[in-house]
Order: sequence, then structure tokens, then C-alpha cells
Amino acid sequence: MAGPYRGDARGPCPIGRAADVLGDRWTLLILREATAGITRYNNLQASLGISSVSLQNRLDRMIEDGILVRRPYPPSPHREHYRRYDYRLTPAGEDLLAVLHAMMNWAEIHTTPAEPAGRMRLVHHVCGHDIAPGEPCGVCGRDVARDEIAWIRPWQSDGAKPLASASTD
Amino acid sequence: MAGPYRGDARGPCPIGRAADVLGDRWTLLILREATAGITRYNNLQASLGISSVSLQNRLDRMIEDGILVRRPYPPSPHREHYRRYDYRLTPAGEDLLAVLHAMMNWAEIHTTPAEPAGRMRLVHHVCGHDIAPGEPCGVCGRDVARDEIAWIRPWQSDGAKPLASASTD
Repeated sequence: MAGPYRGDARGPCPIGRAADVLGDRWTLLILREATAGITRYNNLQASLGISSVSLQNRLDRMIEDGILVRRPYPPSPHREHYRRYDYRLTPAGEDLLAVLHAMMNWAEIHTTPAEPAGRMRLVHHVCGHDIAPGEPCGVCGRDVARDEIAWIRPWQSDGAKPLASASTD
Repeated sequence: MAGPYRGDARGPCPIGRAADVLGDRWTLLILREATAGITRYNNLQASLGISSVSLQNRLDRMIEDGILVRRPYPPSPHREHYRRYDYRLTPAGEDLLAVLHAMMNWAEIHTTPAEPAGRMRLVHHVCGHDIAPGEPCGVCGRDVARDEIAWIRPWQSDGAKPLASASTD
């Protein structure tokens, strides 16, 4: 079997069901990239340094599990032979943000990078201030919607941009 | 290589570092069991239906990653040839509770068991009322310490008992 083992997908335990979807390193990394807005096959491959077989295998499985959808890109019908695909979060995939943030919080405390790296931060894109996952903005006091959250990752050159939202088409 | 692939353990991204530790289904399930207080090798094997090779491989790796510690059981020096081992959470392993609860919340909303199952609940063991992860008890108003949280899993016969704490020896 090429992909991760599946065993608790339909069991009574929700942690087990989630482990069945998320218990794979590449899946978690693809989820991180899709959340940050990296959704094209070639960009995912370049960003993660993952083999085509492993990437396609994980994307297929994430679609099957309902956390990604595949959308043609560009959407024009006139360029069929150039067609590429976008892998966009579904609403269920969008909702995994809380898991990613819990992972981030844990690793900032309990793991250490090989080279000193600036901390990953969450900012309220509307007012520019740091926020904590799931809490209202401490400066402007507003509840922070997902599309108002930006990740600041000092080791990335992409700057702060709001997180990707679920595909609406 | 017998175990899960390792690649971001020392990278700058905390989500990547956490994915390196947690991106494996068996690891997540062993973490769940250890959190619920199932810490002996034989009990883990029986509870998860995991092969000896897979279990030992994951336990070794979780120890290396600093989320479990191995402790002799029974601690008596007189029964060396009967010695068994307990695999207990470390403080870092204890702190992964937020990840497990985020997984639980997600799967209760976005996945469905094959057979109807009662929902997994968190209760404040001191007052007996339901609580939400990371929030004060809505009934008695107190902040809920880890050792006051119990998991209610209707498909398990173990009843409500407080979550396991980190090894202190």
C-alpha cells in the first residue's frame, strides 16, 4: 500500500478518526501549505520537496477524506491542454486550523530548531497586532475571523497575508 | 526504515517540527492511550491491536522525541526477572493534550462513525459537569487543571477517571 495505513476512519473515537486523517507527516505539511495559500501542485512540490508519487497519493487521500478539493486552473475552457489543478481547502480542511495552531504552540515550547529562527507569529491582519489562537485581539478587542489572521514566519519571504479560505466554487 | 519518516525535526517551522513528532497514526493513538492512563506495553498492545514491532518502534521514537519516558514496573528490585515497563507521559507529552482535544473537536463535527456512538465528552471531575477544552468550568466557574479533567467515552467501559499526569520520578 502506497499511502498511510487506515484503520480508525469509522470508529467510535473522534481522536482515532482524526488520527486516521491526520496521522501522516506529509498530510500535515500539505495542510499547512494549503492553509498558507500554496495550492498548486507544482508549488506544493517545490515548497515541500516531496516526490510526485507521495504528493499525488496524499492529495488523493485528502480529497477522499474531504479536507481538500481539486479545482481546474486556469478556469478558462479554452486552454484545456494547459489545464492545471488547484488543491483548495474545504470547510472541513479550513477547520483544521485549530489543530495546526495547537501543534505550533506545542512545538514553540517543547522543540528547538537547529538554527536560531524567529518565532512564528499570528497577527490580526486588520490591526496588525499579535494574537493568540482562538482569542479576541488583545489590542483592538475584536473577535478575529479566520480571514483576518495572517501567519508571520520570519524564515519565509512571503510576508504576512491572510490565511487561505475554503474553496467556494 | 521501519518507522515514520523524519524530516523537519530541527527546521525553523514549529508546525513542521510538530508534524515530525506527531505525523504518524500509531503515535497519535499511543499518545491518546497514555493520556487516558494506559501505559503498560501489554495493555497498549491489547488496546490498539498493534504489532510488537510497530509498538516498540513507536515507543522508542516517542521516548527519543521526549514525549514518553520508560519506567520499570513493578519498581521493586526483588523481581528483576519479572520486570515490565510503564511508558509514561513527560511534561511535553502531557502538553499535547491541546492537540488531542483539537482533533476531537474537529472529528466530532466533520467525521461520522460507522455505528452510532455517544459523543466523547470532557467533564470537570471535581464537580461532574461538562467542560470545553481550555475553558473554565461553566458551572462551578473554576479554571480546570489537567488532573481535574476526565474523558467520558461511552464506547469504553473504563468510566470517568482523571487524565494521566506526567511521570514525576
